[in-house]
Amino acid sequence: MTTADVRALRDLLPEGRVFDDVDVLEAHRRDRAGFCPAGTPAVLVRARSTEDVSTTLEWAHRNRVPVVPQGARSGLSGAANALDGCILLSLEKMDRILDIDVSEQVAVVQPGVVNGVLAAKVAEHGLFYPPDPGSRSISTIGGNVATNAGGMCCVKYGVTGDFVRGLEVVLADGRVMRTGRRTAKGVAGYDLTHLVVGSEGTLGVVTEVTVALRPAAAQPLTAVAFFPTIADAVRTVAGYLGEGYRPSVLEFMDRPTVNAVQKIADLGFPDGMAGMLLVQSDRGDAAPGELAAFEEVARANQASEVVVADDPAEGELLMQARRLVGDAHEQLGLTVLVDDVCVPRRNLVNLVEGLGRIAEQYRVQVLCAGHAGDGNMHPVVAFDSDDAKETVRAHQAFDAIMELGLDLGGTITGEHGVGHLKRRWLGEELDEAALSAQRAIKAALDPHNILNPGRVFPDQEEFTA
Amino acid sequence: MTTADVRALRDLLPEGRVFDDVDVLEAHRRDRAGFCPAGTPAVLVRARSTEDVSTTLEWAHRNRVPVVPQGARSGLSGAANALDGCILLSLEKMDRILDIDVSEQVAVVQPGVVNGVLAAKVAEHGLFYPPDPGSRSISTIGGNVATNAGGMCCVKYGVTGDFVRGLEVVLADGRVMRTGRRTAKGVAGYDLTHLVVGSEGTLGVVTEVTVALRPAAAQPLTAVAFFPTIADAVRTVAGYLGEGYRPSVLEFMDRPTVNAVQKIADLGFPDGMAGMLLVQSDRGDAAPGELAAFEEVARANQASEVVVADDPAEGELLMQARRLVGDAHEQLGLTVLVDDVCVPRRNLVNLVEGLGRIAEQYRVQVLCAGHAGDGNMHPVVAFDSDDAKETVRAHQAFDAIMELGLDLGGTITGEHGVGHLKRRWLGEELDEAALSAQRAIKAALDPHNILNPGRVFPDQEEFTA
Repeated sequence: MTTADVRALRDLLPEGRVFDDVDVLEAHRRDRAGFCPAGTPAVLVRARSTEDVSTTLEWAHRNRVPVVPQGARSGLSGAANALDGCILLSLEKMDRILDIDVSEQVAVVQPGVVNGVLAAKVAEHGLFYPPDPGSRSISTIGGNVATNAGGMCCVKYGVTGDFVRGLEVVLADGRVMRTGRRTAKGVAGYDLTHLVVGSEGTLGVVTEVTVALRPAAAQPLTAVAFFPTIADAVRTVAGYLGEGYRPSVLEFMDRPTVNAVQKIADLGFPDGMAGMLLVQSDRGDAAPGELAAFEEVARANQASEVVVADDPAEGELLMQARRLVGDAHEQLGLTVLVDDVCVPRRNLVNLVEGLGRIAEQYRVQVLCAGHAGDGNMHPVVAFDSDDAKETVRAHQAFDAIMELGLDLGGTITGEHGVGHLKRRWLGEELDEAALSAQRAIKAALDPHNILNPGRVFPDQEEFTA
Repeated sequence: MTTADVRALRDLLPEGRVFDDVDVLEAHRRDRAGFCPAGTPAVLVRARSTEDVSTTLEWAHRNRVPVVPQGARSGLSGAANALDGCILLSLEKMDRILDIDVSEQVAVVQPGVVNGVLAAKVAEHGLFYPPDPGSRSISTIGGNVATNAGGMCCVKYGVTGDFVRGLEVVLADGRVMRTGRRTAKGVAGYDLTHLVVGSEGTLGVVTEVTVALRPAAAQPLTAVAFFPTIADAVRTVAGYLGEGYRPSVLEFMDRPTVNAVQKIADLGFPDGMAGMLLVQSDRGDAAPGELAAFEEVARANQASEVVVADDPAEGELLMQARRLVGDAHEQLGLTVLVDDVCVPRRNLVNLVEGLGRIAEQYRVQVLCAGHAGDGNMHPVVAFDSDDAKETVRAHQAFDAIMELGLDLGGTITGEHGVGHLKRRWLGEELDEAALSAQRAIKAALDPHNILNPGRVFPDQEEFTA
């Protein structure tokens, strides 16, 4: 963009939307993914209305300028990183909850509403917004929609997309479309709602989201179990769910992860265990029975200790252990690459055993925690990034983990998205026909390839302004 | 298609796939929608494998011959009716259950598997496939996927699409793609699974479906309540759900519908009521409480009588009343047009009151039953089709019902699909940008417009061979 371009865009938008100070741009160049390039943006547009977004895209479409939509930049795949010469289109200031409809159990929100803020607000009405990505205290609904974010509740309630009923989306050329519906059901035309969910800013910019809510669940009961081997822990997961129980949380942490967490908060977890499971039931009167059944399956799988929290507060403390995992990685004093493979639950044992082999083969540390109930693990490759050779090996290990996930009938990304980080891998997961259908849809909806170009798809030429 | 064309296609496919006898073609010309034109097909291809489908589409794509995919032809929107000169592509013989994975709680099936057959088979493994369209004893999973079929369980469990994890789809040009995944979560690339679900055979032909299952639910308890006015009944729906209960069934029937049902099976329902609700809870120990709460809300809304079934068998008998609605319409001795509007629950009162006005204005009978818990009603316009003027008024009433649904913030179709029947109306529900995005996707995936051309979209030129 030339100086004249910036002026032209500024003239089209209301006061206080277009920023090009170096410091502001620098502060908005990156999301939280490691090892993804971030270019130098031309401007930042802080949209405050659908019209702002429409005006910006219409101009960018006409002038062939790439646009990178951004929320809270808490993503883990580089999809919100700047591209050279791009417009960073921030939706953060579109942060109003427009409606909470108690009767229909839906909420209508702008994309910049923070997940945790929405969850707290609907709780005041006796309602429940389940999707709870680890980032929920900072990440926005718009970002959650862009990545189809998961979280801990998914094992019972499903992911973000399962709660999205309808969207307002600004198309690449600036036209505004509504998708989906506000009603419980509806099949009029193609489901563009779920096409846009998870499209990581490449098909349109979401300016309004209608989400389904549920009645508030009971306060959860919590239990933890400790195992002598990781295999025992993950076998418990498949065994317990196979019996038909539906816990609201079923998380795994291996010992190195627990050790790192305990450097931040000493939870008094025992030594001499290889991994632990954390389980919650929010079924009210049925919860104690659901946890007793968990204890039984865990003990049958060699659990050395099972602790059921006496009250919700103690349970919340145990949950903190899982929530601190991200911060705990910083205690390692190493650089980390966070993976996100998801495999059929019965293959979890093979996955965790394979992680051990990969750590050995590439001589890097591989920690593991994750949403075991979904088969969605976040293996973490930890390495010394000052050591060039180790860095290379770390990236090889990261790739080997995705290959292992695919070999086990899984996916390269359960909930973080492809973004930049995994685009080389998309072609390994999708067949040629599916990949070409996806490209055809991208070309149909964004013919000049201005929306987050170069993200998601492998080998696609990056847009250079 | 010329005789030479038919021979060419027959030569490409294995023995016993291509049929052109007049009787066979005639028997496959129509689905169950009234008032939708059915053309004269050129041939029927009975696919027995993905390869058969691929070969047929590749040939049709090359030769620009329209293809109409068919399952059990139980659809209600005309989407499976023949087009002149088309290939009817029947998936009925691809009816194998390929896998039931108890650990991962998924099943993999061919499209011709009948819904009720799948449900019964997974029940043998202690699992549950909830989507239960009224046609479940005859309709196929492929057809359910094509229309994103609903049913009675939706109020608690959601529709077909909520249970589809992945598909094998043959694209218009014969290439085979896999979409989605087998794992609980996955966000690699665009969600083509849900783009194809509900696309009524216009984007590809589904040859394999991976569905999510749930642990078996408890045997449901059933209750019915009778109300002096329809408004009292539907107010009960919003009130009950608004208190946070999650019944597994919550159905409404008005008095004329009940009367018609009782001509088939005398259920001893009282006279002097305007409508009834039928509710089930499958929450096991919690079910009696859930039904007691229903009774309380119903009585607060003037219910004259509430009956809780003593045992599952009695409950099943009550459910028969709802299942007989389709057959009961035949007892009227009139022609019927079945509508499928879905509105926000709080507007159900306005919907049923509006139906009364429409019946009066157009001097036709309008009966009403439906999935009240979802706000998804099936108003039925009953009329004498030998009376040309009444027939015109009936169609006007049918249209007026959709207009009313839209005015109340609803959709023209909750679960039956657009097909031929409602394509004129799609443009009333969708905005210009959404409609053009849908057309762009159709053109991108089916450039020669051979897949069920003229269905779903309004004003699209019908393919003529």
